[in-house]
Amino acid sequence: MKIAVLGTGGGGRAHAAKLAELGHDVFVGTRDPEATLARTEPDMMGNPPYKQFLADHPGLTLLPFGAAAAAAELVINGIDGHNAVATLTASADQLTRKTLIDYAVPFVYQHRSEHPWPTPWGVMPKLDPCDTDSLGEQIQRALPQTKVVKSFVTQEQSTVVDPQAIGGGDHTMFVAGEHADAKQQTVDLLKSYGWNDILDLGPLVCARGMEMYAHMHSAIGFGLGQKFGGHFGIKVVR
Amino acid sequence: MKIAVLGTGGGGRAHAAKLAELGHDVFVGTRDPEATLARTEPDMMGNPPYKQFLADHPGLTLLPFGAAAAAAELVINGIDGHNAVATLTASADQLTRKTLIDYAVPFVYQHRSEHPWPTPWGVMPKLDPCDTDSLGEQIQRALPQTKVVKSFVTQEQSTVVDPQAIGGGDHTMFVAGEHADAKQQTVDLLKSYGWNDILDLGPLVCARGMEMYAHMHSAIGFGLGQKFGGHFGIKVVR
Repeated sequence: MKIAVLGTGGGGRAHAAKLAELGHDVFVGTRDPEATLARTEPDMMGNPPYKQFLADHPGLTLLPFGAAAAAAELVINGIDGHNAVATLTASADQLTRKTLIDYAVPFVYQHRSEHPWPTPWGVMPKLDPCDTDSLGEQIQRALPQTKVVKSFVTQEQSTVVDPQAIGGGDHTMFVAGEHADAKQQTVDLLKSYGWNDILDLGPLVCARGMEMYAHMHSAIGFGLGQKFGGHFGIKVVR
Repeated sequence: MKIAVLGTGGGGRAHAAKLAELGHDVFVGTRDPEATLARTEPDMMGNPPYKQFLADHPGLTLLPFGAAAAAAELVINGIDGHNAVATLTASADQLTRKTLIDYAVPFVYQHRSEHPWPTPWGVMPKLDPCDTDSLGEQIQRALPQTKVVKSFVTQEQSTVVDPQAIGGGDHTMFVAGEHADAKQQTVDLLKSYGWNDILDLGPLVCARGMEMYAHMHSAIGFGLGQKFGGHFGIKVVR
């Protein structure tokens, strides 16, 4: 399948690598491919230069955001939360009638030095939107012709693409959205990642809870003594 | 042990009944005991009149908030979130040097008819505070001589006091607070309720995540087809 992964951060890399491994044609979207390839320093989250990542994962195609979206049947949004709506809106035509799986958290921060993250006590910077709206809903409103599904966001992306690494895979993944066919595509993708317990929360308004769970996710990670990038899952026991 | 349960709603009833069953001396706090006993209609959440509850659970002592707190060594706050700070502050002297376990969610609502709850899609009314503060922290700031522990809040109170009812008890309860001895008291109480997996998230700032999880809790309940009072738990799989 032709799948676009928008964004070159750690989450986007996890999905791009896994999708290529699964045999998909993967188109990675970035603002300016030349600039992305020119970087020689780790990014703000400590990820190595993307050129090195591409060398380690042959078969990925790096394109501008719009071209990556245009090349794909299914699109995964890995753009930072505070840039997501503007960046995706600029590629609205290329996203028309496609499923867009969004896992962004709408953190309010610009520079890590201004807003240390994560803090020593594991709580995120302010979320915006929060409580009465969500980034997932904002994206859906900005792209009414696109089928937005919120998913992945309750886990580190490294374990989203490798659920078996946590408790043998016995934990729960969530989806929410307005489009049943798009949610089914997402469920199928998650099953190919190795997920067995996928709970459909219902409409996209449930993205609020999924995004706001970022605080709890961070707190649990710190409670477990994991200083960054929690290696755990949550299971809905019923 | 002498334990006060402040509040006569469904959550307070669950704790009061369980604590009496466990052999504790239970003092239930309410604003006006005479008024509480005079009610003959179910409350806004559909709970039967408290007089009937007392008849079904002999041994509980109904007192004004301050007197209940004064009589106890350990206090459980089951006062509605939007009334909690003001009501507890009025009993600050009686709460001095005591552990106060708070499980309130700071929902913004006054009358169920104005703010239907839960909504058909399972999302809570607005939370206040949210994201950059929490009710747990507000209570601790208002009562600096009291040892506030946030706990219980990620579950329906009926399963907090009966964890074995969900998956044989194989799910996770959380505590957060600034006072190690108060958290240990809370952990001991939870163990007496039947909890085996209790995760200390750390400082009280983690109450933000626990309270904000209300959205996700509601969404999961709706995802499971449970229209009110979710009968499930979450397990941290690590």
